[in-house]
This record gives sequence, C-alpha cells and structure tokens, in this order.
Amino acid sequence: MSALKGASAPIYFGSFIVTPQAIHQVFFTTPLSFALVNLKPILPGHVLISPRRVVPRVTDLTPAETSDLFLTVRRVGRMVERVYGASSLNIAVQDGVHAGQSVPHVHAHIIPRKPADLDHRGGTDAVYDLLDGDEGDIGKAFKDAGATEDGRRNKFPAVDNEARSPRGEEEMRAETEMLAREMEKEPLD
Amino acid sequence: MSALKGASAPIYFGSFIVTPQAIHQVFFTTPLSFALVNLKPILPGHVLISPRRVVPRVTDLTPAETSDLFLTVRRVGRMVERVYGASSLNIAVQDGVHAGQSVPHVHAHIIPRKPADLDHRGGTDAVYDLLDGDEGDIGKAFKDAGATEDGRRNKFPAVDNEARSPRGEEEMRAETEMLAREMEKEPLD
Repeated sequence: MSALKGASAPIYFGSFIVTPQAIHQVFFTTPLSFALVNLKPILPGHVLISPRRVVPRVTDLTPAETSDLFLTVRRVGRMVERVYGASSLNIAVQDGVHAGQSVPHVHAHIIPRKPADLDHRGGTDAVYDLLDGDEGDIGKAFKDAGATEDGRRNKFPAVDNEARSPRGEEEMRAETEMLAREMEKEPLD
Repeated sequence: MSALKGASAPIYFGSFIVTPQAIHQVFFTTPLSFALVNLKPILPGHVLISPRRVVPRVTDLTPAETSDLFLTVRRVGRMVERVYGASSLNIAVQDGVHAGQSVPHVHAHIIPRKPADLDHRGGTDAVYDLLDGDEGDIGKAFKDAGATEDGRRNKFPAVDNEARSPRGEEEMRAETEMLAREMEKEPLD
C-alpha cells in the first residue's frame, strides 16, 4: 500500500482517468482500491473509495476486492475523522442506478460528521438529500469541471446551473497532497 | 457459515438479545457477523448486517471483522435483491451518533431498490429521509415493540406515536425463516 506512489497503471473512475498525474484527486492507493477527493464535497473531508477494477455493482467485486475496499474505507475513514476534527462518519454506497448511482463504478462515500454540522441545511439527516441531490452527483461534477474521458480538461467547462461551482484545481491538489501525507501516519490496522 | 443454525452464543444487537431463539429476526450468521430483518422496514427486504462483537464504530472492528461484515453485506445484498425482485441496493452505515446512529452497535443497512419505488414518498432519494427519520430509528423500533434488554417482550409495549406500527411477530418470523432458506441457495462467493 502506498500514498500516491505505486500507481503505475492508469486509475479510472468510471470512464474518467483519475491517475494522480492526470487529475490530482487520488491521495491513496492499494493494489485493489483507491481513494479520491471530491470535486464538490458535501462537507469538509468528503472522500470516495473505489475498486481499481471498473465494475458497477458490489456483487461484481471479488471477495478480495470487497475486503480491500472496505478495509480502505475503515482506514481512510479513521484518517479523515482525525484530520477534519469530526466525531462520526456517514458511509454510503449507491449500488446501482435505482439507488442513485451516477457513475457506473462502485464507490463508497465517506462523509465526516460533527455535532450540528448540517443544522443550517436541515439537520443531521440533510446529508442524504445533499448526497442524492445535484451536489452529490459525481458524474455531473466531473463533466462540469470539464473532465474528459481521457482525463484532460476541456477548454470550456460545461456551465454549472448551480451557484455552487466545483472547486479549483489548486485547492484539490493541495488537499490531495495533504491527505496523502496524513495517510502515511495511519497504522496499517 | 450457517443460516440460523450454529448460533450457540447469544447474539446481541446493542443491548438487545436477538438470538434466533429469543427474537425471530436473525436469518443468517457467520462466525463474526449476523443478518437480521427489521421491525420497521423502509422498503421490502430492508435488512441489517452487524458484527457479533458489540462495538459502536467501524474503526473498533478488527480487519477480519471488517472483511467478514462487508462480505456478508455483499452476499446478503445479492440475496435480497433477487428475492425482492429489486435492481439496486442502498448500503449505508451511520458510523457514530453524529451520523444518525441510534443503536451503538455497528450495523450496515441494506435496502433493495426498484425503479420509482419511492415516487409516492418523494423520489429515489427519499430513502435517506426515511432511514434517518423516525421510521429508520432502530432503537426506538425495538423499544416500541416491547423488546427488553434480555430479549423478552413487555406485556405493554410502549405506545408508538406514529400511525405506522412495528410488524407483528408472526410476520417477522415468517420472513426470517424465508430469508434463511434463501441464503442457503446463495453461492459462497
């Protein structure tokens, strides 16, 4: 397992290349899984864990991939909870299109939570509205940011209808590098 | 791994004993995990997967417990999707009280989804409002059903303020037995 290093083959998130050298979102890799920051986090520290192999459903994973994915969820979850000063985590997989999945590649959301962190948005449970609303639409966020299917950026990103626009590349790069360093502090177990 | 059989030590869900002989909710066990039906399912086939060891947070699990829990989620998820004629699954862990956890014992919700299944409740995303609202409050549902901490039932179950009351014991027993039989048809991998 390594942070950033060791990602020799390209890493895909759905049809988007998210290899560290292409888009600075991947902050941790294992032989079977990777962790990436969000273009449009619902709350600070909202990250995604995916298998390296591009398959849409959890049942498509091998047992080894399933174990590795959720051991990575556990380890990365512990890290973001510490780094963002949180006290709980929402862990959610929209497993299939009728469960709200927007990119046909298994991904577990990890969202650090604090007391009263969403009171201004409707309370603790508002996280799920946000997850499933436009703000949680990862496919749309990728397209809005102008990501193309070979990982380059379009010159003219699609216009985002929302006031809230995707984060800048520099901000994401800085967060990716910070989280990669923080993962190196985590115990293996 | 066995369905119902092989659960010699009592199985706890939080402080409630849910051993098959006490409350007919547990339809599948592994050496480290168990699966139980819900008193108040949000949608048909809504079940829970928990570790046998009563710990509140995912980070409290050993790596072996983490792997076993999510391999059980994958296998039980495949079964309920088949049995309830669904096409997707919501998989969610409220990991800690500030993420909406009501019983301090790790549990993954598995909710089978179909096209338009929640249109009358507000659309695909309404599952999360239901999960985090009173209907998803597992601790309250246990208490409403009159479960006591040693797994017996009170003579006078607490009054449920909602029109929607917990399911009857016979209905849950029948579902538990049906799901136990269905698990026996699932391949190990």
